[in-house]
Amino acid sequence: MRLRNVKNKEEILDNTSFLITNPMDYRGRWKKLFSNDNPIFLEIGMGKGKFIIENAKKYPNINFIGIEKYDNVLVKAIKECPIKLDNLVFIRYDALYIDEIFFHDIDLLYLNFSDPWPKTRHHNRRLTSPVFLNKYKTIFSRDSIIEFRTDNRDLFQYSLVSFSQNGYIFEDVSLDLHHDNMPLITTEYEDKFSSNNYPIYYVKCFSRNV
Amino acid sequence: MRLRNVKNKEEILDNTSFLITNPMDYRGRWKKLFSNDNPIFLEIGMGKGKFIIENAKKYPNINFIGIEKYDNVLVKAIKECPIKLDNLVFIRYDALYIDEIFFHDIDLLYLNFSDPWPKTRHHNRRLTSPVFLNKYKTIFSRDSIIEFRTDNRDLFQYSLVSFSQNGYIFEDVSLDLHHDNMPLITTEYEDKFSSNNYPIYYVKCFSRNV
Repeated sequence: MRLRNVKNKEEILDNTSFLITNPMDYRGRWKKLFSNDNPIFLEIGMGKGKFIIENAKKYPNINFIGIEKYDNVLVKAIKECPIKLDNLVFIRYDALYIDEIFFHDIDLLYLNFSDPWPKTRHHNRRLTSPVFLNKYKTIFSRDSIIEFRTDNRDLFQYSLVSFSQNGYIFEDVSLDLHHDNMPLITTEYEDKFSSNNYPIYYVKCFSRNV
Repeated sequence: MRLRNVKNKEEILDNTSFLITNPMDYRGRWKKLFSNDNPIFLEIGMGKGKFIIENAKKYPNINFIGIEKYDNVLVKAIKECPIKLDNLVFIRYDALYIDEIFFHDIDLLYLNFSDPWPKTRHHNRRLTSPVFLNKYKTIFSRDSIIEFRTDNRDLFQYSLVSFSQNGYIFEDVSLDLHHDNMPLITTEYEDKFSSNNYPIYYVKCFSRNV
Protein backbone atom coordinates (compact mmCIF):
# COMPACT_ATOMS: atom_id res chain seq x y z
CA MET A 1 0.00 0.00 0.00
CA ARG A 2 1.34 3.44 -0.93
CA LEU A 3 1.83 5.57 2.12
CA ARG A 4 0.86 9.17 1.59
CA ASN A 5 1.51 11.54 4.45
CA VAL A 6 -1.67 12.66 6.21
CA LYS A 7 -2.06 16.19 7.53
CA ASN A 8 -2.61 16.58 11.28
CA LYS A 9 -1.65 12.95 11.71
CA GLU A 10 -0.25 13.36 15.23
CA GLU A 11 -3.23 15.40 16.33
CA ILE A 12 -5.70 12.78 15.07
CA LEU A 13 -3.77 9.93 16.71
CA ASP A 14 -3.47 11.83 19.99
CA ASN A 15 -7.14 12.65 20.20
CA THR A 16 -8.85 9.41 19.15
CA SER A 17 -10.33 7.07 21.71
CA PHE A 18 -9.99 4.17 19.23
CA LEU A 19 -6.25 3.88 19.68
CA ILE A 20 -4.91 1.79 22.56
CA THR A 21 -1.49 3.25 23.29
CA ASN A 22 -0.56 0.80 26.08
CA PRO A 23 -1.53 -2.58 24.53
CA MET A 24 1.04 -4.54 26.57
CA ASP A 25 -0.92 -3.64 29.70
CA TYR A 26 -3.86 -5.69 28.44
CA ARG A 27 -1.92 -8.84 27.58
CA GLY A 28 -3.99 -11.82 28.78
CA ARG A 29 -6.92 -9.62 29.81
CA TRP A 30 -8.32 -7.85 26.78
CA LYS A 31 -11.85 -8.84 27.80
CA LYS A 32 -11.48 -6.36 30.67
CA LEU A 33 -10.93 -3.53 28.23
CA PHE A 34 -14.22 -4.35 26.49
CA SER A 35 -15.95 -5.02 29.85
CA ASN A 36 -17.68 -8.15 28.51
CA ASP A 37 -17.08 -11.83 27.70
CA ASN A 38 -17.73 -11.59 23.97
CA PRO A 39 -15.28 -13.25 21.57
CA ILE A 40 -12.41 -11.14 20.26
CA PHE A 41 -11.57 -11.12 16.56
CA LEU A 42 -8.25 -9.65 15.47
CA GLU A 43 -7.21 -8.26 12.10
CA ILE A 44 -3.48 -7.90 11.49
CA GLY A 45 -2.68 -5.32 8.84
CA MET A 46 -6.13 -3.70 8.86
CA GLY A 47 -5.13 -1.04 6.34
CA LYS A 48 -7.72 1.73 6.04
CA GLY A 49 -10.07 -0.30 8.20
CA LYS A 50 -13.13 -0.80 5.99
CA PHE A 51 -13.33 -4.51 6.72
CA ILE A 52 -12.99 -4.31 10.48
CA ILE A 53 -15.18 -1.20 10.89
CA GLU A 54 -18.03 -2.74 8.90
CA ASN A 55 -17.68 -5.97 10.86
CA ALA A 56 -17.77 -4.11 14.17
CA LYS A 57 -20.93 -2.28 13.13
CA LYS A 58 -22.63 -5.45 11.89
CA TYR A 59 -21.64 -7.70 14.82
CA PRO A 60 -21.99 -5.73 18.07
CA ASN A 61 -21.61 -8.95 20.11
CA ILE A 62 -18.10 -9.53 18.86
CA ASN A 63 -15.15 -7.38 19.89
CA PHE A 64 -12.75 -6.37 17.14
CA ILE A 65 -9.12 -5.33 17.38
CA GLY A 66 -7.27 -3.99 14.37
CA ILE A 67 -3.50 -3.82 14.25
CA GLU A 68 -1.64 -1.61 11.83
CA LYS A 69 2.03 -0.76 11.70
CA TYR A 70 1.84 2.46 9.71
CA ASP A 71 0.55 5.75 11.13
CA ASN A 72 -0.54 7.10 7.76
CA VAL A 73 -2.85 4.13 7.21
CA LEU A 74 -4.12 4.01 10.77
CA VAL A 75 -5.13 7.66 10.62
CA LYS A 76 -7.31 6.94 7.61
CA ALA A 77 -9.12 4.18 9.48
CA ILE A 78 -9.77 6.55 12.39
CA LYS A 79 -11.14 9.17 9.99
CA GLU A 80 -13.41 6.52 8.44
CA CYS A 81 -15.21 6.01 11.70
CA PRO A 82 -16.00 9.34 13.39
CA ILE A 83 -18.20 7.84 16.13
CA LYS A 84 -16.50 5.56 18.65
CA LEU A 85 -17.77 1.98 18.64
CA ASP A 86 -17.67 0.10 21.96
CA ASN A 87 -16.54 -3.13 20.30
CA LEU A 88 -13.66 -1.80 18.21
CA VAL A 89 -10.15 -0.63 19.02
CA PHE A 90 -6.99 -0.09 17.03
CA ILE A 91 -3.39 -0.75 17.93
CA ARG A 92 -0.26 0.62 16.28
CA TYR A 93 2.15 -2.28 16.50
CA ASP A 94 4.44 -4.53 14.53
CA ALA A 95 2.90 -8.00 14.14
CA LEU A 96 6.31 -9.54 14.67
CA TYR A 97 5.93 -8.82 18.39
CA ILE A 98 2.26 -9.76 18.62
CA ASP A 99 2.94 -12.21 21.45
CA GLU A 100 3.95 -9.20 23.59
CA ILE A 101 0.40 -7.85 23.53
CA PHE A 102 -1.82 -10.96 23.42
CA PHE A 103 -1.86 -14.12 25.50
CA HIS A 104 -4.87 -16.45 25.09
CA ASP A 105 -7.02 -13.45 24.20
CA ILE A 106 -8.01 -14.00 20.55
CA ASP A 107 -10.80 -16.18 19.10
CA LEU A 108 -10.25 -15.59 15.38
CA LEU A 109 -7.54 -13.96 13.30
CA TYR A 110 -8.14 -12.24 9.96
CA LEU A 111 -5.26 -11.79 7.54
CA ASN A 112 -6.57 -9.81 4.58
CA PHE A 113 -4.40 -8.99 1.56
CA SER A 114 -1.17 -9.10 3.48
CA ASP A 115 2.02 -7.86 1.86
CA PRO A 116 3.12 -10.65 -0.57
CA TRP A 117 6.86 -10.05 -0.08
CA PRO A 118 7.63 -11.59 -3.48
CA LYS A 119 11.38 -12.12 -3.10
CA THR A 120 12.34 -15.52 -1.70
CA ARG A 121 14.75 -13.98 0.82
CA HIS A 122 11.83 -12.00 2.28
CA HIS A 123 9.37 -14.92 2.60
CA ASN A 124 9.84 -15.05 6.36
CA ARG A 125 8.25 -11.60 6.53
CA ARG A 126 4.97 -12.94 5.13
CA LEU A 127 2.27 -12.97 7.80
CA THR A 128 1.64 -16.65 6.99
CA SER A 129 5.29 -17.74 7.27
CA PRO A 130 6.29 -20.29 9.92
CA VAL A 131 7.89 -17.39 11.85
CA PHE A 132 4.54 -15.66 12.24
CA LEU A 133 2.43 -18.83 12.64
CA ASN A 134 4.70 -19.64 15.55
CA LYS A 135 4.15 -16.15 17.03
CA TYR A 136 0.35 -16.59 16.79
CA LYS A 137 0.37 -19.84 18.78
CA THR A 138 -0.05 -18.24 22.17
CA ILE A 139 -2.45 -15.45 21.21
CA PHE A 140 -5.52 -17.70 20.78
CA SER A 141 -7.91 -18.34 23.64
CA ARG A 142 -8.77 -21.89 22.48
CA ASP A 143 -8.30 -23.32 18.97
CA SER A 144 -6.31 -21.22 16.52
CA ILE A 145 -8.66 -20.09 13.75
CA ILE A 146 -7.39 -18.04 10.82
CA GLU A 147 -9.23 -16.62 7.83
CA PHE A 148 -6.89 -15.56 5.07
CA ARG A 149 -7.67 -13.71 1.83
CA THR A 150 -5.38 -12.58 -0.93
CA ASP A 151 -5.33 -11.84 -4.62
CA ASN A 152 -1.70 -12.96 -4.88
CA ARG A 153 -1.43 -16.49 -6.29
CA ASP A 154 2.13 -17.09 -5.18
CA LEU A 155 1.40 -15.93 -1.64
CA PHE A 156 -1.70 -18.13 -1.52
CA GLN A 157 0.14 -21.26 -2.67
CA TYR A 158 2.89 -20.57 -0.15
CA SER A 159 0.36 -19.99 2.61
CA LEU A 160 -1.55 -23.23 1.97
CA VAL A 161 1.70 -25.17 2.34
CA SER A 162 2.80 -23.13 5.35
CA PHE A 163 -0.53 -23.54 7.18
CA SER A 164 -0.58 -27.26 6.41
CA GLN A 165 2.99 -27.85 7.57
CA ASN A 166 2.40 -25.93 10.79
CA GLY A 167 -0.51 -27.96 12.12
CA TYR A 168 -3.42 -26.14 10.52
CA ILE A 169 -6.31 -28.07 8.99
CA PHE A 170 -8.47 -26.53 6.27
CA GLU A 171 -12.15 -25.96 6.82
CA ASP A 172 -12.88 -24.13 3.60
CA VAL A 173 -10.89 -23.15 0.51
CA SER A 174 -11.94 -21.00 -2.42
CA LEU A 175 -9.90 -20.06 -5.45
CA ASP A 176 -12.52 -17.53 -6.49
CA LEU A 177 -14.25 -16.28 -3.38
CA HIS A 178 -16.47 -13.70 -5.01
CA HIS A 179 -17.76 -16.29 -7.42
CA ASP A 180 -18.27 -19.12 -4.90
CA ASN A 181 -19.64 -17.23 -1.98
CA MET A 182 -19.61 -13.46 -2.10
CA PRO A 183 -18.55 -12.16 1.31
CA LEU A 184 -20.84 -9.63 2.95
CA ILE A 185 -17.98 -7.48 4.07
CA THR A 186 -14.96 -6.76 1.91
CA THR A 187 -11.78 -4.72 2.23
CA GLU A 188 -11.24 -1.61 0.11
CA TYR A 189 -8.38 -3.32 -1.65
CA GLU A 190 -10.58 -6.33 -2.42
CA ASP A 191 -13.28 -4.15 -3.97
CA LYS A 192 -10.79 -2.56 -6.32
CA PHE A 193 -9.18 -5.82 -7.29
CA SER A 194 -12.31 -7.86 -7.67
CA SER A 195 -13.99 -5.25 -9.85
CA ASN A 196 -11.31 -6.08 -12.43
CA ASN A 197 -12.46 -9.71 -12.30
CA TYR A 198 -9.30 -11.02 -10.73
CA PRO A 199 -10.00 -13.95 -8.41
CA ILE A 200 -9.78 -13.57 -4.64
CA TYR A 201 -8.25 -16.60 -2.91
CA TYR A 202 -9.57 -17.60 0.49
CA VAL A 203 -8.85 -20.18 3.15
CA LYS A 204 -10.28 -20.75 6.61
CA CYS A 205 -8.17 -23.06 8.74
CA PHE A 206 -7.82 -24.11 12.33
CA SER A 207 -5.39 -25.78 14.67
CA ARG A 208 -6.49 -27.56 17.80
CA ASN A 209 -4.68 -26.28 20.84
CA VAL A 210 -4.76 -29.12 23.33
CA MET B 1 -14.27 -39.33 -20.84
CA ARG B 2 -16.48 -40.46 -23.71
CA LEU B 3 -16.34 -44.19 -24.13
CA ARG B 4 -16.34 -45.25 -27.74
CA ASN B 5 -16.48 -48.96 -28.41
CA VAL B 6 -13.20 -50.35 -29.68
CA LYS B 7 -13.10 -53.09 -32.32
CA ASN B 8 -11.42 -56.38 -31.33
CA LYS B 9 -11.49 -55.21 -27.74
CA GLU B 10 -11.68 -58.67 -26.23
CA GLU B 11 -8.97 -59.99 -28.49
CA ILE B 12 -6.60 -57.15 -27.56
CA LEU B 13 -7.27 -57.60 -23.85
CA ASP B 14 -6.84 -61.38 -24.06
CA ASN B 15 -3.54 -61.19 -25.87
CA THR B 16 -1.68 -58.42 -24.06
CA SER B 17 0.99 -59.21 -21.52
CA PHE B 18 0.46 -55.78 -19.93
CA LEU B 19 -2.78 -56.78 -18.26
CA ILE B 20 -2.68 -58.51 -14.88
CA THR B 21 -5.90 -60.49 -14.70
CA ASN B 22 -5.34 -61.90 -11.20
CA PRO B 23 -4.27 -58.79 -9.25
CA MET B 24 -5.59 -60.13 -5.92
CA ASP B 25 -2.91 -62.82 -6.05
CA TYR B 26 -0.20 -60.17 -5.78
CA ARG B 27 -1.64 -58.33 -2.80
CA GLY B 28 1.25 -57.53 -0.44
CA ARG B 29 3.86 -58.86 -2.86
CA TRP B 30 3.81 -56.83 -6.05
CA LYS B 31 7.59 -56.52 -5.95
CA LYS B 32 7.71 -60.23 -6.82
CA LEU B 33 5.83 -59.61 -10.04
CA PHE B 34 8.44 -57.07 -11.09
CA SER B 35 11.29 -59.26 -9.73
CA ASN B 36 13.06 -56.30 -8.16
CA ASP B 37 12.99 -53.98 -5.16
CA ASN B 38 12.31 -50.77 -7.07
CA PRO B 39 9.60 -48.42 -5.81
CA ILE B 40 6.10 -48.88 -7.19
CA PHE B 41 4.12 -45.89 -8.41
CA LEU B 42 0.39 -46.32 -9.01
CA GLU B 43 -1.95 -44.31 -11.21
CA ILE B 44 -5.66 -44.70 -10.55
CA GLY B 45 -7.79 -43.84 -13.56
CA MET B 46 -4.94 -43.93 -16.06
CA GLY B 47 -7.19 -43.23 -19.04
CA LYS B 48 -5.46 -43.79 -22.35
CA GLY B 49 -2.19 -44.19 -20.51
CA LYS B 50 0.01 -41.45 -21.99
CA PHE B 51 1.19 -40.26 -18.57
CA ILE B 52 2.06 -43.65 -17.14
CA ILE B 53 3.60 -45.04 -20.35
CA GLU B 54 5.88 -42.04 -20.77
CA ASN B 55 6.85 -42.25 -17.10
CA ALA B 56 7.65 -45.96 -17.40
CA LYS B 57 9.86 -45.30 -20.41
CA LYS B 58 11.64 -42.39 -18.74
CA TYR B 59 12.15 -44.02 -15.34
CA PRO B 60 13.15 -47.68 -15.83
CA ASN B 61 14.11 -47.96 -12.13
CA ILE B 62 10.57 -47.30 -10.98
CA ASN B 63 7.75 -49.80 -11.46
CA PHE B 64 4.43 -48.42 -12.63
CA ILE B 65 0.96 -49.84 -12.23
CA GLY B 66 -2.01 -48.28 -14.00
CA ILE B 67 -5.57 -48.99 -12.93
CA GLU B 68 -8.52 -48.36 -15.20
CA LYS B 69 -12.14 -49.39 -14.78
CA TYR B 70 -13.24 -49.17 -18.39
CA ASP B 71 -12.25 -51.70 -21.07
CA ASN B 72 -12.61 -49.24 -23.91
CA VAL B 73 -10.07 -46.89 -22.35
CA LEU B 74 -7.71 -49.61 -21.24
CA VAL B 75 -7.55 -51.04 -24.76
CA LYS B 76 -6.39 -47.69 -26.07
CA ALA B 77 -3.55 -47.61 -23.54
CA ILE B 78 -2.47 -51.09 -24.62
CA LYS B 79 -2.52 -50.04 -28.27
CA GLU B 80 -0.41 -46.97 -27.36
CA CYS B 81 2.42 -49.15 -26.20
CA PRO B 82 3.06 -52.01 -28.64
CA ILE B 83 6.29 -53.19 -26.99
CA LYS B 84 5.99 -54.62 -23.48
CA LEU B 85 7.90 -52.66 -20.81
CA ASP B 86 9.26 -54.63 -17.87
CA ASN B 87 8.32 -51.90 -15.39
CA LEU B 88 4.71 -51.32 -16.41
CA VAL B 89 1.50 -53.29 -15.94
CA PHE B 90 -2.18 -52.46 -16.17
CA ILE B 91 -5.08 -53.64 -14.05
CA ARG B 92 -8.78 -53.50 -14.87
CA TYR B 93 -10.35 -52.77 -11.51
CA ASP B 94 -12.67 -50.48 -9.62
CA ALA B 95 -10.67 -48.18 -7.31
CA LEU B 96 -13.35 -48.60 -4.66
CA TYR B 97 -11.91 -52.05 -3.91
CA ILE B 98 -8.27 -51.06 -4.20
CA ASP B 99 -7.48 -52.46 -0.77
CA GLU B 100 -8.29 -55.92 -2.14
CA ILE B 101 -5.31 -55.80 -4.48
CA PHE B 102 -2.67 -53.78 -2.61
CA PHE B 103 -1.33 -54.04 0.92
CA HIS B 104 1.77 -51.98 1.76
CA ASP B 105 2.88 -52.21 -1.88
CA ILE B 106 2.71 -48.64 -3.19
CA ASP B 107 5.25 -45.81 -2.81
CA LEU B 108 3.40 -43.02 -4.62
CA LEU B 109 -0.11 -42.56 -5.96
CA TYR B 110 -0.99 -40.40 -8.96
CA LEU B 111 -4.53 -39.11 -9.37
CA ASN B 112 -4.70 -37.24 -12.67
CA PHE B 113 -7.85 -35.50 -13.88
CA SER B 114 -10.20 -37.71 -11.94
CA ASP B 115 -13.92 -37.56 -12.60
CA PRO B 116 -15.16 -34.37 -10.84
CA TRP B 117 -18.58 -35.84 -9.90
CA PRO B 118 -20.09 -32.34 -9.70
CA LYS B 119 -23.32 -33.17 -7.86
CA THR B 120 -23.05 -32.95 -4.08
CA ARG B 121 -24.75 -36.30 -3.58
CA HIS B 122 -21.98 -37.93 -5.66
CA HIS B 123 -19.03 -36.31 -3.86
CA ASN B 124 -18.20 -39.56 -2.09
CA ARG B 125 -17.36 -41.03 -5.49
CA ARG B 126 -14.55 -38.54 -5.98
CA LEU B 127 -11.17 -40.26 -5.78
CA THR B 128 -10.12 -37.70 -3.15
CA SER B 129 -13.18 -38.14 -0.91
CA PRO B 130 -12.72 -39.41 2.66
CA VAL B 131 -14.14 -42.76 1.47
CA PHE B 132 -11.26 -43.24 -0.95
CA LEU B 133 -8.57 -41.65 1.22
CA ASN B 134 -9.54 -44.21 3.82
CA LYS B 135 -9.24 -47.04 1.25
CA TYR B 136 -5.73 -45.86 0.28
CA LYS B 137 -4.43 -46.00 3.87
CA THR B 138 -3.26 -49.61 3.71
CA ILE B 139 -1.91 -49.63 0.15
CA PHE B 140 1.23 -47.57 0.89
CA SER B 141 4.50 -49.24 1.80
CA ARG B 142 5.63 -46.39 4.11
CA ASP B 143 4.33 -42.82 4.08
CA SER B 144 1.28 -42.10 1.97
CA ILE B 145 2.31 -39.81 -0.88
CA ILE B 146 -0.24 -38.52 -3.39
CA GLU B 147 0.20 -36.26 -6.41
CA PHE B 148 -3.09 -34.87 -7.66
CA ARG B 149 -3.79 -32.82 -10.79
CA THR B 150 -7.04 -31.45 -12.11
CA ASP B 151 -8.44 -28.65 -14.20
CA ASN B 152 -11.65 -28.62 -12.13
CA ARG B 153 -11.67 -25.79 -9.60
CA ASP B 154 -14.47 -27.18 -7.48
CA LEU B 155 -12.86 -30.61 -7.29
CA PHE B 156 -9.52 -29.05 -6.38
CA GLN B 157 -10.97 -26.93 -3.57
CA TYR B 158 -12.83 -29.98 -2.24
CA SER B 159 -9.69 -32.11 -2.46
CA LEU B 160 -7.50 -29.63 -0.57
CA VAL B 161 -9.98 -29.68 2.31
CA SER B 162 -10.42 -33.45 2.13
CA PHE B 163 -6.67 -34.15 2.10
CA SER B 164 -6.14 -31.71 4.97
CA GLN B 165 -8.94 -33.15 7.10
CA ASN B 166 -7.71 -36.70 6.56
CA GLY B 167 -4.18 -36.31 7.87
CA TYR B 168 -2.37 -35.20 4.72
CA ILE B 169 0.18 -32.39 4.82
CA PHE B 170 0.96 -30.37 1.71
CA GLU B 171 4.43 -30.38 0.25
CA ASP B 172 3.68 -28.35 -2.86
CA VAL B 173 0.64 -26.55 -4.28
CA SER B 174 0.22 -24.86 -7.63
CA LEU B 175 -2.84 -23.12 -8.98
CA ASP B 176 -1.27 -22.91 -12.43
CA LEU B 177 1.10 -25.82 -12.81
CA HIS B 178 2.09 -25.21 -16.40
CA HIS B 179 3.02 -21.65 -15.55
CA ASP B 180 4.86 -22.37 -12.30
CA ASN B 181 6.73 -25.51 -13.19
CA MET B 182 5.90 -27.19 -16.46
CA PRO B 183 5.76 -30.94 -15.87
CA LEU B 184 7.93 -33.08 -18.12
CA ILE B 185 5.21 -35.66 -18.61
CA THR B 186 1.56 -34.75 -19.10
CA THR B 187 -1.68 -36.63 -19.68
CA GLU B 188 -3.48 -36.42 -23.03
CA TYR B 189 -6.37 -34.64 -21.32
CA GLU B 190 -3.99 -32.12 -19.76
CA ASP B 191 -2.42 -31.28 -23.13
CA LYS B 192 -5.80 -30.53 -24.63
CA PHE B 193 -6.96 -28.48 -21.70
CA SER B 194 -3.78 -26.55 -21.11
CA SER B 195 -3.45 -25.59 -24.77
CA ASN B 196 -6.61 -23.52 -24.23
CA ASN B 197 -4.78 -21.67 -21.44
CA TYR B 198 -6.93 -23.01 -18.63
CA PRO B 199 -4.93 -23.47 -15.43
CA ILE B 200 -3.98 -26.91 -14.17
CA TYR B 201 -4.23 -27.25 -10.39
CA TYR B 202 -1.70 -29.43 -8.60
CA VAL B 203 -0.97 -30.64 -5.09
CA LYS B 204 1.60 -33.04 -3.69
CA CYS B 205 0.80 -34.19 -0.17
CA PHE B 206 1.88 -36.83 2.27
CA SER B 207 0.73 -38.53 5.41
CA ARG B 208 3.16 -40.12 7.84
CA ASN B 209 2.20 -43.71 8.58
CA VAL B 210 3.71 -44.45 11.97
